[in-house]
Amino acid sequence: MSSFFQRLREAARSRRSLLCVNLDPDPERIAGGAGGALRHCVNVIERTAEHTCCYKPNAAFWEQYGPDGWKALIELRQRVPEGVPFLLDAKRGDIGSTMRAYARAIFDVVGSDAVTATPYVGADALEVLTAYADRAVYLVCRSSNPGAGDLQHLEASGEPVYLHVARMADRLNRAGNVGLVVGATAPEDLARVRAESALPFLVPGVGAQGGDLERSVRAAWNGDDASCLVAVGRSVLYADDPAREAAGLQAAINSVLATV
Amino acid sequence: MSSFFQRLREAARSRRSLLCVNLDPDPERIAGGAGGALRHCVNVIERTAEHTCCYKPNAAFWEQYGPDGWKALIELRQRVPEGVPFLLDAKRGDIGSTMRAYARAIFDVVGSDAVTATPYVGADALEVLTAYADRAVYLVCRSSNPGAGDLQHLEASGEPVYLHVARMADRLNRAGNVGLVVGATAPEDLARVRAESALPFLVPGVGAQGGDLERSVRAAWNGDDASCLVAVGRSVLYADDPAREAAGLQAAINSVLATV
Repeated sequence: MSSFFQRLREAARSRRSLLCVNLDPDPERIAGGAGGALRHCVNVIERTAEHTCCYKPNAAFWEQYGPDGWKALIELRQRVPEGVPFLLDAKRGDIGSTMRAYARAIFDVVGSDAVTATPYVGADALEVLTAYADRAVYLVCRSSNPGAGDLQHLEASGEPVYLHVARMADRLNRAGNVGLVVGATAPEDLARVRAESALPFLVPGVGAQGGDLERSVRAAWNGDDASCLVAVGRSVLYADDPAREAAGLQAAINSVLATV
Repeated sequence: MSSFFQRLREAARSRRSLLCVNLDPDPERIAGGAGGALRHCVNVIERTAEHTCCYKPNAAFWEQYGPDGWKALIELRQRVPEGVPFLLDAKRGDIGSTMRAYARAIFDVVGSDAVTATPYVGADALEVLTAYADRAVYLVCRSSNPGAGDLQHLEASGEPVYLHVARMADRLNRAGNVGLVVGATAPEDLARVRAESALPFLVPGVGAQGGDLERSVRAAWNGDDASCLVAVGRSVLYADDPAREAAGLQAAINSVLATV
């Protein structure tokens, strides 16, 4: 089996799209519990698949439905078209023996192609995930929330903690299956990470969170089709016409790429 | 309803025990899938309840069973005796809108009294959890794994990142419902956190991980019955006689307390 990033590159090239659609159902906006959430998200997948190179459900939004949510998440994974990677946004981070159980849940039970992880616990625990050579791990480097700086911007040995995380990710990348989560809400930080790391980026924060699409894409893109996976959530998931919204985002990203 | 830490203190006092038993089933050691895991853990609860002031399942070990694991986890919660707190060790950490969904899953669906969280994302996101005033949040400060130092020991403004986390936890503690996870595998670091913070500690790493029970209890205990919750896993869960093992640990902790 080819590597995750190879599969992502092929999906991005064949669709000419760097768009990743988040599948994070909100029970206050979607009726019908876990079943309703599944139907809503499958419909969004069907309507956006030609504009999308990756689907990214966040585990929290499925866990809030209880056991039925996990059942729906597993079915959701099976409804993503072949050739389009499925990335479970789970931000897991615990000691090694626990990470082995998370890896079983995410890679074996759900069958996800990739996962997001949080770096605070340290490299030894994250190696449990990177040992799955045909899957990938995106490590949170610089998150998209307002309080991201509390720890991430602390300066250690003359540079912010998030750059230490970028370097840890490089060390973890022996199988070529590690990427970084770098938010679109801080394009300067994103550019600083790109200056230090050639790893693929997952870029959340565009849309409802107010991230800067143009500056972020310009800073993240390095010519590699996996270098700048732009994750968009609510604006597609709740659009009257998800296909048109996804096509618009795809075009907006491509028009930035045309000028770099 | 009284605060989580008040309930924990009462459980610790009435049982004269600071022992927290982890409920992390390993499918390679327990037959029968999620149902077998539930039966095994309920049996351990029944046999250890008089020696235990808190039960702590780790979410990963239940997630590995898929939807049936979440169903079993919810039933497990209902099988913990009244008056003994239930702490879901989930190490969650994501942006605010996602944390709201995790909080629903953990506090509303599972009905957990408390949760562990990872601090990298920043205080604004963690406030979603601390807003539940009758529940509690233990923030990972200094983890018990060998690679804990990779980020946690970076020096920023003259002190390690884990002390910055301790201070962030103090700021988050407006409702008196924040504690810290500080591993028994590094008693010097534990003592350093205690010198800076009066928050309740959850102390993992005793037993299979090789943590130092005596030095850790000595360093963590500050006279508050919630100050030093000692979490033990495999040695109780797979003991031939879990009651005897738990009683032995309870006594070992109490004999340290008798000399401080």
